[in-house]
Order: sequence, then C-alpha cells, then structure tokens
Amino acid sequence: MKIFEEIESEVRSYARAFPRLFDKAQGELIYDDDGNQYIDFLAGAGSLNYGHNHPIFKEKLIEYIQRDGITQGLDLHTRAKGEFLESFNENILKPRDLEYVVMFTGPTGTNAVEAALKIARKKTGRENIISFTNGWHGQSLGALSVTGNSTHRGGAGIALHGSTRIPYDGYLGDDFDTTNLLDKMLSDSSSGVDKPAAVIVETVQGEGGINAASMNWLQSLSEICKRHDVLLIVDDIQAGCGRTGTFFSFEEAGIYPDIVTLSKSLSGYGLPFAIVLMKPEVDQWSPGEHNGTFRGNNHAFVTAKAAIDHFWKDDKFAKEVQRKGQYIADRVDAIVAKYGEGNFNSHGRGMFRGINCVSGELAGQITRKCFQNGLIIETSGADDHVVKFLCPLTITDENLKKGIDILEKAIKEVCDKADSIPEEKDFFEGDYSVSDEASKSDTFEPASKKVAS
Amino acid sequence: MKIFEEIESEVRSYARAFPRLFDKAQGELIYDDDGNQYIDFLAGAGSLNYGHNHPIFKEKLIEYIQRDGITQGLDLHTRAKGEFLESFNENILKPRDLEYVVMFTGPTGTNAVEAALKIARKKTGRENIISFTNGWHGQSLGALSVTGNSTHRGGAGIALHGSTRIPYDGYLGDDFDTTNLLDKMLSDSSSGVDKPAAVIVETVQGEGGINAASMNWLQSLSEICKRHDVLLIVDDIQAGCGRTGTFFSFEEAGIYPDIVTLSKSLSGYGLPFAIVLMKPEVDQWSPGEHNGTFRGNNHAFVTAKAAIDHFWKDDKFAKEVQRKGQYIADRVDAIVAKYGEGNFNSHGRGMFRGINCVSGELAGQITRKCFQNGLIIETSGADDHVVKFLCPLTITDENLKKGIDILEKAIKEVCDKADSIPEEKDFFEGDYSVSDEASKSDTFEPASKKVAS
Amino acid sequence: MKIFEEIESEVRSYARAFPRLFDKAQGELIYDDDGNQYIDFLAGAGSLNYGHNHPIFKEKLIEYIQRDGITQGLDLHTRAKGEFLESFNENILKPRDLEYVVMFTGPTGTNAVEAALKIARKKTGRENIISFTNGWHGQSLGALSVTGNSTHRGGAGIALHGSTRIPYDGYLGDDFDTTNLLDKMLSDSSSGVDKPAAVIVETVQGEGGINAASMNWLQSLSEICKRHDVLLIVDDIQAGCGRTGTFFSFEEAGIYPDIVTLSKSLSGYGLPFAIVLMKPEVDQWSPGEHNGTFRGNNHAFVTAKAAIDHFWKDDKFAKEVQRKGQYIADRVDAIVAKYGEGNFNSHGRGMFRGINCVSGELAGQITRKCFQNGLIIETSGADDHVVKFLCPLTITDENLKKGIDILEKAIKEVCDKADSIPEEKDFFEGDYSVSDEASKSDTFEPASKKVAS
Amino acid sequence: MKIFEEIESEVRSYARAFPRLFDKAQGELIYDDDGNQYIDFLAGAGSLNYGHNHPIFKEKLIEYIQRDGITQGLDLHTRAKGEFLESFNENILKPRDLEYVVMFTGPTGTNAVEAALKIARKKTGRENIISFTNGWHGQSLGALSVTGNSTHRGGAGIALHGSTRIPYDGYLGDDFDTTNLLDKMLSDSSSGVDKPAAVIVETVQGEGGINAASMNWLQSLSEICKRHDVLLIVDDIQAGCGRTGTFFSFEEAGIYPDIVTLSKSLSGYGLPFAIVLMKPEVDQWSPGEHNGTFRGNNHAFVTAKAAIDHFWKDDKFAKEVQRKGQYIADRVDAIVAKYGEGNFNSHGRGMFRGINCVSGELAGQITRKCFQNGLIIETSGADDHVVKFLCPLTITDENLKKGIDILEKAIKEVCDKADSIPEEKDFFEGDYSVSDEASKSDTFEPASKKVAS
Repeated sequence: MKIFEEIESEVRSYARAFPRLFDKAQGELIYDDDGNQYIDFLAGAGSLNYGHNHPIFKEKLIEYIQRDGITQGLDLHTRAKGEFLESFNENILKPRDLEYVVMFTGPTGTNAVEAALKIARKKTGRENIISFTNGWHGQSLGALSVTGNSTHRGGAGIALHGSTRIPYDGYLGDDFDTTNLLDKMLSDSSSGVDKPAAVIVETVQGEGGINAASMNWLQSLSEICKRHDVLLIVDDIQAGCGRTGTFFSFEEAGIYPDIVTLSKSLSGYGLPFAIVLMKPEVDQWSPGEHNGTFRGNNHAFVTAKAAIDHFWKDDKFAKEVQRKGQYIADRVDAIVAKYGEGNFNSHGRGMFRGINCVSGELAGQITRKCFQNGLIIETSGADDHVVKFLCPLTITDENLKKGIDILEKAIKEVCDKADSIPEEKDFFEGDYSVSDEASKSDTFEPASKKVAS
Repeated sequence: MKIFEEIESEVRSYARAFPRLFDKAQGELIYDDDGNQYIDFLAGAGSLNYGHNHPIFKEKLIEYIQRDGITQGLDLHTRAKGEFLESFNENILKPRDLEYVVMFTGPTGTNAVEAALKIARKKTGRENIISFTNGWHGQSLGALSVTGNSTHRGGAGIALHGSTRIPYDGYLGDDFDTTNLLDKMLSDSSSGVDKPAAVIVETVQGEGGINAASMNWLQSLSEICKRHDVLLIVDDIQAGCGRTGTFFSFEEAGIYPDIVTLSKSLSGYGLPFAIVLMKPEVDQWSPGEHNGTFRGNNHAFVTAKAAIDHFWKDDKFAKEVQRKGQYIADRVDAIVAKYGEGNFNSHGRGMFRGINCVSGELAGQITRKCFQNGLIIETSGADDHVVKFLCPLTITDENLKKGIDILEKAIKEVCDKADSIPEEKDFFEGDYSVSDEASKSDTFEPASKKVAS
Repeated sequence: MKIFEEIESEVRSYARAFPRLFDKAQGELIYDDDGNQYIDFLAGAGSLNYGHNHPIFKEKLIEYIQRDGITQGLDLHTRAKGEFLESFNENILKPRDLEYVVMFTGPTGTNAVEAALKIARKKTGRENIISFTNGWHGQSLGALSVTGNSTHRGGAGIALHGSTRIPYDGYLGDDFDTTNLLDKMLSDSSSGVDKPAAVIVETVQGEGGINAASMNWLQSLSEICKRHDVLLIVDDIQAGCGRTGTFFSFEEAGIYPDIVTLSKSLSGYGLPFAIVLMKPEVDQWSPGEHNGTFRGNNHAFVTAKAAIDHFWKDDKFAKEVQRKGQYIADRVDAIVAKYGEGNFNSHGRGMFRGINCVSGELAGQITRKCFQNGLIIETSGADDHVVKFLCPLTITDENLKKGIDILEKAIKEVCDKADSIPEEKDFFEGDYSVSDEASKSDTFEPASKKVAS
Repeated sequence: MKIFEEIESEVRSYARAFPRLFDKAQGELIYDDDGNQYIDFLAGAGSLNYGHNHPIFKEKLIEYIQRDGITQGLDLHTRAKGEFLESFNENILKPRDLEYVVMFTGPTGTNAVEAALKIARKKTGRENIISFTNGWHGQSLGALSVTGNSTHRGGAGIALHGSTRIPYDGYLGDDFDTTNLLDKMLSDSSSGVDKPAAVIVETVQGEGGINAASMNWLQSLSEICKRHDVLLIVDDIQAGCGRTGTFFSFEEAGIYPDIVTLSKSLSGYGLPFAIVLMKPEVDQWSPGEHNGTFRGNNHAFVTAKAAIDHFWKDDKFAKEVQRKGQYIADRVDAIVAKYGEGNFNSHGRGMFRGINCVSGELAGQITRKCFQNGLIIETSGADDHVVKFLCPLTITDENLKKGIDILEKAIKEVCDKADSIPEEKDFFEGDYSVSDEASKSDTFEPASKKVAS
C-alpha cells in the first residue's frame, strides 16, 4: 500500500526490515496480505509472550466488548480492573510473598518508568538515578536519561540529566564485580556521584544485547542498595511476564526490589498496558500527582486477567518456558560453536537469548536471510550486532525448531559453511520432552489451521 | 471491592471523587455495579468525544478481533494501519489542505508530546521550547517541562529544564497581547530567552482552566513563529477531534502549524492511540530514532478509521457540535449571570467549556452534588476552581439538557439561591433545533435501553 | 609588542578597540607607551570609580607591602581584613541601618554572584532564580544562567538552567509595570514558574544598555519578594560603590535587599575584590561550604579601607557624584536632542549613563572617533548600541567636560551635523558649581602633572 | 578582634582552625598580632609556592606601584602584561616545546576552569566532560559540576549537570587501570556516556587527598583522549608552578595536554591571577566571548614575571624542589612506618604529599596539636583524613625539618607512642645535601630576622 510511502513518517523502522503488508496473526504465526506465513521470533518486541491473539483471551475480550463493558475508565474503579487486581494479587504476588501496591500508569513502558523514577525521587528527596551501561528504559525524557543507546539519547535534542552510569555485570570482564565500583562510589563522599534515589536495572538487558546479569551480581546489587538506603527498581518490562522462566525475572535471585515496572506482555494480548509495583512504604503519591488519560484501558485488564488465570495459577507454564529455554540455549550454543569461528557467543536466560555476531553488518545479513525464509527475527545491541530471540513463550516445539533451523541455515550461509545443519534428532529428545500436562496447558492447535478467514 | 483499598496505589484520583464500582457504559451514560446510571460529562477526560462504546465502532472492532486481525503490530505495515491512514488522509488532511506526515508514537498523549518536542529540537538544533502559563502537555519529563501545574511539576522530583514560559492569551488582561512579549524577547538578543526550537500551545487550555485563545492571538503567534523561524506545535490532544466544533481546533484561526499532536479521542473508542502530524520538511527522523512498543495498537486503528468514516466525511457532525456548543455556552452564561454574584465567569469554545467558580472549594462542592444527582463532572484549573464540561459530542439533546439542569441545581444549592431553575422552554428551541440529517448521523437510541445485560 | 599577537588568546576584546600598549595611569588619565594621554571613560569597566592609582590609597598600599603585611591570607583573620570590616561597618552599614554579615568570596564579581545564588538556594531549598531581560551577572555557569546576553550564554556550550526570565522595568513600554507579571506568575500555581529562591536584579543594567529601573518599580519588586517569601538579591557590582550617587544603588528606593553583591570598585584601587552581604538570617553557610583560594586578598582590604575612610565618612562625595551626574545627564540630553534625529535617547542614573544610538554600527563609529581624539569610551547593550559613560567619579570637572566635548564632536561627525558644538559656558555654571568642601575632599591635582615618570 | 564575630559570615573555615589575628608574613613564616611565629605548611592553600612576600618580587611590585604602572588594565595590552607573556614564553613554554596561547581569565582558579570547560565545549560542540572521583576544580557552578566533594556539591542548591565521573588512578585497587573503563565507555555507543568534549584531570589530587596519578596512567589517559578525539584538560592550579618538582606537573609523563589551567602560585606573591593555556587550534573564542573585570590584574603580572625570571630560567630550582620532596617523602614514610599501626599511608609527588590517617578525627587532632606547637598545617580528602603538606617550595632546610618534627611529635602524641622522635641526624645528610648554587638561588635569610617591624 503506497499510503505508507506517502504519509507515514520516516521514523518507521521494523517496517523497513520486514517490508510486507501484514494482516492477520495467530500464536507465533503472522500472515501477510498475500497469504504468506511467517514464524514470529520478534513477538511484538517482547509484548506477545503468549503469542498473537490467544484464543482464550480473545474470547474473553469479545465477550467484554459485546456486553458494553467500560472500555476507557480513567482511574475509576471498574469491575474489570478489580478482577485483574484480584487475580494478580492471588496468583502472582501472594505466592511469591511480594507485598506490592499497584499503580496504573499510562499504558506504555516508558510511562511506567517515568512514574517509577518520579516516586523514587519523591520518596527519597534525591535526584540522581544509578543506571547501567547498555540499559534501555524508554523514549520519553526521564526514561531516556537512564537509557544507554547514543542514537536514541541523541534523538532527545537536549542534554539528559540526573543519572550516573555504572558498568553492568560483565562489562569489565568476568573477574571484576562492577557492583564494587558502585559500592565504593556510594561510600565515598567525594566520589562525585550524588547520593542516588534509586538504582534502575534490567536483569537481562534486551535492547542492550541480551546481557544477562548473574544471580550473584543481582544479590550484591540488592545488598548495596539496602546498605546505602537506595531504592532498587527492576525494570521488568521486557524480561518479566515469564520471559526468563519465572513470572518476574528476579525470582531466581531471591531479591525483593522496592519498585518493579511491568508492561509489554502484561496484557497478554498485545494491548497497551503498564503498571508500577512498589512496596507500600514507597507509595508516597498524592492523589493524581502522576496521571495519564489511558491508565484505565479496561480491555487490557480483561486479557491480562485471562492470561494470569490461564498460565500462572501453577508452575507448569514456567517449567515449560524453562524447558524451551534450555532447548534454545543448547541449539544456540551448538550454532555458536559451529559457526562464527570462535568469535560469536551466546547470552541470555530462559527464552530471552541472543547470539552476539560481533558485527551489525553480519547480524543484519542473517536476519534478512531469515525473513526471506519465513522467519521474523531482529537484532539488538549497541551496534545491532546481536541476533535476538523473542519468540512467544507458547510457541509449539515444532515451530520453535523450525524457526531455529531457518536461523541456523541463514547463519551457515552468511558464514559460508556447507556442513553445518545439525542432525534433527539431536534436539527435542530426552531433556526437552514435553510433559503431558504442560503440553495441554500452554499449547494449542497449530495457528495456521485456526486463523479465521 | 476492597481489592482497591488493599493494593491500588494512593495515586488514584477520579476514583476518590466518584467512589463507585463501574462496569458498563454506552454513549454518554455510565453504570455502576448496583445498576445506577450516570450522565458522563467527564467522558474519559476528553477521550470519549463519541461516547462510550459507540455501536458502529464496536461492531468493527469485534469483527476485526474475530478474524484474528493483528492486534500488536509494532510499526509494521498492517492492513488496519493502512486503512486508517487512507481514511485520515482523504477525510481529514486533504479537505483541509494540510500536508502532513503521520508519526505513530507510543499510544498516550505524553508520548506524542515527547516526540513532537524531540523532532522540533532535532530539526532546529535548538533546545528551548516556548510554553505557556497554565499549559498542560503530559506527565513524562519532557512533556512535564512544558506543563505549568506546580503539583505535577513538583512530582518530578527533579528540576524541569528547557522551556521558557510566556503568559497565555488574556493572562495580563484583555488589553495586553502577550504575543508582543514573546516577539520582543525573540527579537532581543539579550533577553535571556534562548532562541527556541518551537512554541507549544493548546488553542484551548483544558487542564489549565478551559482558557480559549482568541483567533487573533493564535494568528499573531503563528506569524511570530514564522518571522523568527521557530516551529509552531499545536497540542490538539484534548481540543482536537472535534471538541471545539471542527476536527482540528486551529481551523477557525486559519493557521497551519508545523507540528500537531493528537490522542485522546483519536481512536474514537477510548483505546490508547496517539500520533504526531508534521510538515514533511520537519520529518527529519532517522529510522527508529524514537520508537515505542505499542505504537502499533491496531484495535485503535480500526476504531479510529470507523470514527472518521462515520463522523468526518462531511461537515454535518461539526455543525452539530457547534449547535450544541452554542446551547452549552448560552446555558452556562445564564447560570453564571444568575449565580455566583458576579464572580463566576464562563470560558471556552465549542463543546469545551468551563465555569470559573473562583474557588476550588466551591467548585468541588458543586461537582460532588452533581454526582449525588447522577452527573459525573470534574474540575480543572490551577486551584481546581473551574467546573469543566467535557460531555461526549454525541450526547443527545435530552441528556445534555438533563446534565446541565443537574449542574445548575447543584450550583444553585451551593450558592444558596432558591429561585434559579431556568424555564425549560428557554432552551432547545429556535437556534438549537436539530436538522433532520444531522440528527440521524450522530444520534442513536437512548443508551439506557441499549446496554447489553 | 608582538608578543600579544603571538601568544595571547583570540578572546581579547578591549585590546582590539584600543590597540595601544598602555603603561601608566593616574586618576582619569591613562598613558600609552608613546606618551599619549587618554581620558578614561571606561574606568576598568566600572572598577575604577576613584580613578587609577589614587595617591592616598597608593601610599597605604605601599606602606603595607613594605612592612610585610600578609598578602594572601585565605580566610584567616588578618589585621587588614579586620580593619576593612570595621571601617565598612562604621561608615557604610551602620549609617544606612543595614544589618548585614559580610562574606568574602573569590575576588571577582562572578564568584560573588555564584555565592549569592548558592546561599539563596540553600536558605530556601528552592532552585529557581528570577532574573531579568538584559541582566548581566557574570561568566561562570551559575552567574551566566541569570545573564541575558546571547553571545555570552552561547559561549557556555551547555544549556543554562535554573532561571526564569522576567521583563525588566520599561521592557513592555512605560505603561506596563512588569512586576505585575512577576506577581501574577508567583501567585498562580499553574504558571509554570517554579517558586523561586530569589530574584536577582541590577538597579541599573550596565552591560544591558544602562537601563535604570524606577524607584517605584524597585519598591514594587521588593514588596512582591516579601509577599511571596522570595529573597531579593541586588547585584550592585557595577552600580554600587557610589556610581549612582549613593554608596549602594538601592538607597534612594528605600529598600533593604536580603543579599547584595559588591565587587569592581570595592577595593578602590582596581584590585580584585568581591563580597556578598546578606541578612544574618540568610547566612546559613556551613564552614567552608563555599570557598576560594584568593578570598583573602589583603592588598585589596587595605585599599578598600582607604577608599571608605577617604570618601564615605560623610555625604560630600555622594553629593559630588550627584552634581556631576546631573551635569552628564544634562549634557547628554542636549546631545541627544541635537543629534540622532529623534532616534537617540539617554538612560541612566548618577554617573552611570548611556546614549542609545539605536545601531551598534553607529555607536561603534562614535567610540572609534572618540579614541582617535583621546577618549576611551565603550558601548554596551544587546547590539552594542549604547555609548556608555563610566568615567571615574573623581574626574575633574575639566576633564569631564573635555571628555564629553570629544564625544559630542564624534557624534556630530558621525551624524554629519556641522552646527552642534555647545557653547562652553552653557555648562558648569550655576547648578554644577563645586562646593568648597566637596572639591577639597575628592579632587586632587590634575593627573597629568603627577604621574611618576 | 570581635568584628569577625560580629559581621563575618559563618562560611569562614581556616579562621576557625587557626583562631589568631595574623598580620605579617615572610617566606614560610607567619606572625600573629601577639608576635607569635608559625611555620606555614598551608602556604595559602598552595598559592604561596615561593613563600610569603618574597623580597625580590616585593621590590618589583613596590617599584611598579610607585611609578603609577597601570593596576587594573582589563584586557588592554599593557607593558606589564607583555613582559609577563614574554618571560612566560621564553622561560616556560619554549624550553618545554609547548605551543600554547594564553588566555587571561578572571583571576581565580574557578574562573580559569570555567573558561577551560567552555572552550572545550565550544571547540567540540559537545557537552559532556569526563571528571574523576575526588577531583576538585572550584566553586562556581561549572567548576563544581566536575568536582567530587559532596559538601561543596550540595552547597550548590541545584543539580550539577554535564559531567561523567570516572574512577581516578588507584580507585579500584592497584591492579585495575581505570582508564580501561573510560576507554570502553567511549568505545561503546550504548554505554550511556555521551561523547565528551574533554577530560579534566589533576595529576595530583590536592583537595581529594593528595592522590598522585602514575605516569603510566596519565599517558594512557592522554592516548585515549587522542584516540577518541577528546580534549585533555590538565587542571594544574594546585600541582603546577613547581609543586611536584617541575613547572608543570605533567612534564614527567611527557604528555602535551590540549588545555592547561594555572592559578594559585602563578603570581608568585599570592596575588589573584589565573590563566588558561590552550593549543592554538583550540583557541576558538570570539572576541570577548568569555570575559571578566579583573583579568588585567597588572600587579600580578609584575610579580609573576619576577617569579619566573628568578626561579625558572634554569633547572636549579626544580632540582631543589625534588631534593626537598625526597626528604619529605622519606620523613613521611618513616613516620607512617613508625606510627599508625600499619593503617596510615603516604601519597604524593614532589613537595605535594599527604599522610592518610584513615580518620578525619585523628587527622584533626594531629593538626590541632601542630598549631599549638607553631605549625600551620591542614587536612584534605573526602573525610579530612589526610594531613596535607603544602609548605613553600622555598622553605629553608632548617624550617622544613622543624615543621616535620612538630608534625611527628603531634602524631606521636595522638597515636600515644612515647618512643618515636627520630634521631635528628637521620635526615638532611648525604642525599639531601644542598648544592652550593641551588642554595644560593632559592634560599634567603631566615624570615624571622627580616620581617619589617
């Protein structure tokens, strides 16, 4: 459709990498106007952990719309919102012993980050925020100030203030624990690092190149925050909602952040939704002090509740994600070992994984080849040098394998190796076998058969 | 439901003023869990210009969902997006001779404002933004820096930079054209006002107290911007989409802003959606330089297209809004004349109007009484001293009258006047009579009868 | 000397306008290496109110140096400092009923302004500073942020934050009292003007174009500051030390600023020296919180004491300045009336006066011609369009007349008028006659005769 | 004198540590009003490298004053300034192959730093400045933004922007070269560290605790700056003018900084004076873009020239400083070894040395005891935990030994050791013996005998 060329802004980006007119989607599959099917390893940039248009959530949503349930409710108490809160409390917070209050912000990740930074500053009366190299938190000025990417920072057209940058885990090599630098700077009254309100961290840096912090590092970070009376904000917008194998990405570390941001896959259906969780003592807002027109997007409440009710009443889904994550890790490690001549490496946790191809040029060639073969996959990192796995957590084993095969083939071609397609039987045997129950709870019929015409 | 007390953040505000559990809504009517019906003069803070759950848009939306149309499309080209763009181009831009490119930002007003400020700064290489007293543009740091309200500014917990504040139209009395001050400051190289990238203005300040700029003032502002090579940004998030009687609020002034932000009622259905319009030469973005996960909220594209197709193919709807706006103005003027002892006054344009009650205390008493009588209406302004009319543009004459009657009664009681209910026949005669065609196009059956059980 | 061309920075400026090698100076006269004599109407940019190398101060200084009095004393208590404080207290503060504590800052005006802004922010806990169009306060980042000149602001290479600019007296015409705008903005919680720590103002704007505020305006400003609990800082660096006809420039207005900065002519001898005066309750500094190596420039203390002892024990000198100020005003008014075709005008107070020549080009031609004829005089204002009188207050009547004659001749030539040299006898008769006593106290032998060979 | 109590600001600090009324001074000796003599190991906070009132400079200064040489010359070309520039060029710049232009700023260190930061930003068009933990550069906002000390930063009352803090040499232990972190951050486009205009560094951090960078580290820093096209600013205000054993403190490292700031001891006599040296290609100033009233303090030019002529025409003085520096180092090392139970340590270079006493309390006790015994010595460091040696470089061997003896005695007492006074003959024998020539050039008669009565 030429209308895009005519009047859409030059800012569009994915549309350039995947120049088709898309129309329908189901699960991990997406279809263009000519009926071509693609496996989606981009998944709404991590906002479609449960795939496109999950049929159960879809049913709930249509039912709600049909009965004229309130769509836009501002911050009024609505039935849909209450039911979401109850399910979130019962199934997510309580079982994890997390005592949080829930703040509904404008329904984008950057809005949630802005709110988190504000309340941290208000609560402490301090301005500085510790952020990390390669961190990514959003595009509005507050969120951008704690984001590392220079292209995006430069886009601000104005200096970005109020944050001190600390090297992320691994930035100075495996032997140097970068939390030591933070600790020393906070302990030293002449370090020049103004005492911060908070530290904001992603447990796995998505846009920064799929860098996964170690549990030790996260625990040390949490300790240091406590010791210096600094709030810990985990930005779980991309790594949360199950991506790493647990609902929150920080569960494995056993830490209890003061503030958590959630968005992306929270609604379950790809609808705009974002919340900030905070310990009750942090919740120092005056009524209406931070607001936003669309903080009452009730359609999202309906599908979010459906997603929690369906996937998070027990740990089956989490285990499924862990199983598939292990499969991805093993496949990726094998690919890295086979191609790239020792230069490539693999990072990540759960179903959040990347292949560092060293060069953005190379990574771009790989993803373009993938697209030609029916796989939508993107890059991330400072130089777009990391091929990023963000497939729906609900992807079928078959399509997961198929997608990785396409990727491997692309890497092979780009790296000009002829002998590298792995034996199929190497994978999805033994360790990866699906337990019966799990397979029932999170798998459904292949999408291609079910998409409505 | 006590879940709200238990785990919702203290930041909630409307929920305190209207402490009910709401569930369904239709047109200008909203229903709580006990079956009570309210006339909605708040209308999603201006995001429901076409009322709640408009049946025509609803039908389109359900149809789209049922056929598994893509929900979350990032910035991919999708059929729904293309169709929205075509309708917007044909029905909105072309007939008004406005040559704009369309940027899809994260789907909240503040995201759109952030993008507008960024591109203005990038295009010009300058940092300063001229903003106005009592302006309101959003809650993220960039948007907040051009917002006047001190409570919200204070919520930032950090100094807000990069904007010079100029008095809005009327701020220094009717005789002083405040654009003169701007002109002088921009002409004087030692004024201390750094040459700005842009001026950002609302033609009617909503949250600032329903202050409507005169057409002369807007024209003068536009002239000054041109003369000094400064971009003009009209933030039409609240005043746009028909609220003042034309699709864009600046049409009457005959100006052609360089950048326009739209959100709130743009989707038609209360779904999160925001765009930035800019002249092609302003569109200097690099691909992906400003992005956001939910900039492809396709549900909103579907309903937005439905709204444009239904209401904006000709000028009937605009005329209807003007007719009702006149009715509101006349009623309000009469109320102001009758009560308030000469202290109250009325401001606004089209169906965007306020009664300045001088004191926030008084205005609060009035709105609380209204709520007791079935009318949801809010205040705005620096001291919450302005009772704000934001009823759906599609409200029936009957409910519009009913709502204003409730308001008048509340004002009367608060102002302790016994003799003030106007003769019913004074209004909705003669000038306000609905033309047959118009009434067909934008009115439908009373909501109470149609709400699904 | 070609060394300047070889290794002095391009930043030099006066040296370009007056390209001679200067060596000696006495009173209002300055001599170049070839023995040429110039009348100095620049007077160290206002730092030589008592002329160059005043013989009485010179004697005290040499005596102090000879006896090895401490030169650099940091902030140690020294005899010289104590004696300065006592004289300043007895002769300046007490007679004017001004209860101030004295802070010794680094010995430049900009250092004093930085300290004043800091203590105002510390005392109030607020960040914003109200400053005025065409204000000038210094070149370090804090002082520059409250300065208007765009060339200097641009020189920062970084955005200047923390100040709101208000139009100075007369900026919007004679009929508009600009303090009204300030009052309204401070009273309006949604004005977008963050509640300020302080207002910083020059009573006469020197670099801004010799704009003199009216006494009414200053009084109104002082009232507004009190009403809104905002500190009033008078930057008296250029207008103070007698320049306007009283020691402090604000005496005539009868106001009592919370903070006053002094520098320039404070040492009397052109030696670097600066202090901040503040009401005792403002003096909330922790020991050493603001410091600086050269805040104990004891040579300056010695000459400053000498200056106060000699000129400010009674009001004779003040009256002399007023008398000469009136003479300058009358001469300048006559010149303005005669040349400039109604476009020129005259501004100022006391011996601080300027002729607005409308164009910087014209003003530059005039000052260049003056220099050719033995008069050093400079321009100021946004476009360097104001010829600025800053002659030593101690100038002899003869040299004052001679200097103005040179100026008038230059203006005449530039404006191409043949008939304009005033009759000599028009001036220095009647009203300007020197009282016997006054002439004794502040006049000494013509400088040209006394300069040491 | 009670005048200090009455009207001097609470900000005074040294005056509290050394509560006497001082009057005269000569060389390394300073006298109070009661005739008590003190050895001065504070030396005007490093501004008296040649001692108080050096007789040769004094003679030149008196002569200049007596002949009415221009005192305050703004930036006019004056004979005194030209002669300073010629001597500086011939004796300092040329022999070291340093091609610099000289900028005269306002005569304090902070003014010079402000100018250096400005020109770096202007030259590069970038805003960010890399600064170091524990760095100290001044009190005005620009200089303060690159300073580490939290008390002083907090004194600003406003957030300090525009600088990224990197750990100084040794901050992360001896094994970690902190320039690696800088290099990585500058190489990584997503580090979040905006590409800087410049790095500003002290080769020995004075106020930060006498931390001396290694030559390797300085060389690496210089390399990184070149590689990333970032300007290197050495702030040599305290470490320069001979303090470390060469005129510039960076000579030993063999680096050639783009910009150098000098002040403190530059005038030789303790008079306010500051300059910025920059490579010719950096000198992008427009005329007058950065100025300041007292940038033409001609008295300082006279004494500065005298100091260069007397001490820096050959390397004898430098060698003397190195000899005494070695003596101090050895004495200090012996003291550290003997007391402090292994916790104390010694840092520094040349005659710039400190004893880290771990606790500020302890260091304070030591310096107070010293004062009781006739030695003025101060502390520095984040917690005032470092006893700082800043004695005049021209101190006699006798008084140097005497001062250190007093210090050792104080440390001994505080550390409660009875057996610790070193044998006198251990020092000033063998290696420290004064060459005949050197002793003539920089030593003069004991001060106590020469002070004028």
